[in-house]
Amino acid sequence: MIKIAVDMMGGDNAPDVVLDGVKMLLDEYDDVEIQLFGDQEKYRLQHERIQFQHCTEVIDMEDEPVRAIRRKKDSSMVRMAEAVKYGEADACVSAGNTGALMSSGLFIVGRLPGVERPALALTLPTVDDSGFILLDMGANADAKPEHLEQYAVMGNVYAKAIRKIERPTIGLLNIGTEDKKGNMLTREAFTLLKAQDPLNFIGNVEAKDLLFSAADVVVTDGFTGNMVLKSLEGTANSIFTMLKQQLTKNMKNKLAAGVLKKDMNLIKDKMDYSEYGGAILFGLNGIVIKAHGSSNARAIFNALRQAKETVEMNVLETMKREVVRND
Amino acid sequence: MIKIAVDMMGGDNAPDVVLDGVKMLLDEYDDVEIQLFGDQEKYRLQHERIQFQHCTEVIDMEDEPVRAIRRKKDSSMVRMAEAVKYGEADACVSAGNTGALMSSGLFIVGRLPGVERPALALTLPTVDDSGFILLDMGANADAKPEHLEQYAVMGNVYAKAIRKIERPTIGLLNIGTEDKKGNMLTREAFTLLKAQDPLNFIGNVEAKDLLFSAADVVVTDGFTGNMVLKSLEGTANSIFTMLKQQLTKNMKNKLAAGVLKKDMNLIKDKMDYSEYGGAILFGLNGIVIKAHGSSNARAIFNALRQAKETVEMNVLETMKREVVRND
Repeated sequence: MIKIAVDMMGGDNAPDVVLDGVKMLLDEYDDVEIQLFGDQEKYRLQHERIQFQHCTEVIDMEDEPVRAIRRKKDSSMVRMAEAVKYGEADACVSAGNTGALMSSGLFIVGRLPGVERPALALTLPTVDDSGFILLDMGANADAKPEHLEQYAVMGNVYAKAIRKIERPTIGLLNIGTEDKKGNMLTREAFTLLKAQDPLNFIGNVEAKDLLFSAADVVVTDGFTGNMVLKSLEGTANSIFTMLKQQLTKNMKNKLAAGVLKKDMNLIKDKMDYSEYGGAILFGLNGIVIKAHGSSNARAIFNALRQAKETVEMNVLETMKREVVRND
Repeated sequence: MIKIAVDMMGGDNAPDVVLDGVKMLLDEYDDVEIQLFGDQEKYRLQHERIQFQHCTEVIDMEDEPVRAIRRKKDSSMVRMAEAVKYGEADACVSAGNTGALMSSGLFIVGRLPGVERPALALTLPTVDDSGFILLDMGANADAKPEHLEQYAVMGNVYAKAIRKIERPTIGLLNIGTEDKKGNMLTREAFTLLKAQDPLNFIGNVEAKDLLFSAADVVVTDGFTGNMVLKSLEGTANSIFTMLKQQLTKNMKNKLAAGVLKKDMNLIKDKMDYSEYGGAILFGLNGIVIKAHGSSNARAIFNALRQAKETVEMNVLETMKREVVRND
């Protein structure tokens, strides 16, 4: 039986969508148990495989991360992380304050031996539906070349185990594909990655090629990763906004758009990366997953399923071994 | 009479589109003269306001920038830059090797007094058609906080003069809008920009808001700027690719798409930033403009027009004054 700790109070639409997502998971899988942390008064789901834990505090989006986890000891997020720390749960999932969740991971769950900096990894869509793993998405804004090297090792383990890719291609996100391109960070990281024999390092990849399957795993510093993700979201949103303007501007267009609606919505669905799960914090001594703050029930379900698979596939043990081996 | 030096040999479709773009400019404006640098054998445009200069060499895309401009002294790009240096032309435009053009700017045209690092500035589209200026797009991959401050001063001058904005809003590209967000570079740059009284600094802006008119001028380091631009291009391309797949997948869709074609093409046109001109190198002692390598005649025309306007509006003199004042 796999045990997942869940922060019932995290996210814009908590606790409703969290409870709905939990319900979907329990309906789908028999081999999962949920430890649910939150306010008793807002709890409205009875299930034999849910163990409810009342918490008197909530960390909200405005809380300063480190201070919040130090002061709000009885918050749903802190107690969820403690469940992982003390081995009461195999993994935890929250859609709450990202900074506070990263701090909970770092200070409560703790780092894997040999890992200098944890990284936030996200699986993003590609046009051909294969998807790719991008990390770091913002756990560590000022990365050193050695950190990027570790991200590659961890991303490789995850891509093998979860995405079932035998020998994942690893790319370094850069401003050109030539070997000598980039800033000081990427030029040094390139040299380190090149020397990483067991990895299938394919060199620099450019942001314009990411959605066209440039590599299975793409490593970058947290500042750039976050920037690229938000550029991607902003561009997609702006194009969809302009499409809507054009498709509704007169009756003729509305009629034609009606015919295409279903197929055009497929594109929006395809760009929805929550289908692949949440952002997972690599490099911790436990599985910590961040679902998007605006998650709906389906996105919560996907993040929970991802937690389950990550436990099943023994990702943590493999990562521990690989990171130490490369130390 | 405004004199523009043009590299006839630069770009994927040179010299044909370059000549077509020059022709468009001369037809449109009476007060411009062109100095055209290139291979006599490929020159096929007679015009009283073109002064042709034969060059025996060409810098191509594979050339290593600094070496190329040092060795190929009789190349069209080097001689075009020299025309600006010696005051024979007021501005120059090339669609060739970006690195070589930046080196020509730096080593031939030279820096403005007080400018530490030149920056490449591009005007990008927004959903509401107002557009915004983003810099640096890649002239300087490892920027310091003071560089970002200078970019803001220069972007401000340009936005006032060319985009006719009385008091341009200046944003710092960052991974969150809160004041303390970011990496070491952006946190320090934030403090410097905040203290820049004459600027209308509005704080941090996120990549997801850029195309929704987050600010008139957005400053960032060259690595991030290049990354964001390529993310934007890649995302737009991937969405257009998926749209095409959906809109042509059966006869019903093809018919409906036929009705919408013209209006949907407006979106592609809107995302085409070459409408605003090329990338301009700020911080040089002369006007140097890079047109996109894959420019068509219209894009060359836009870059040439931008060169003309930048000269007319006295951007260089104002920048010189403002940069020194802030030194």
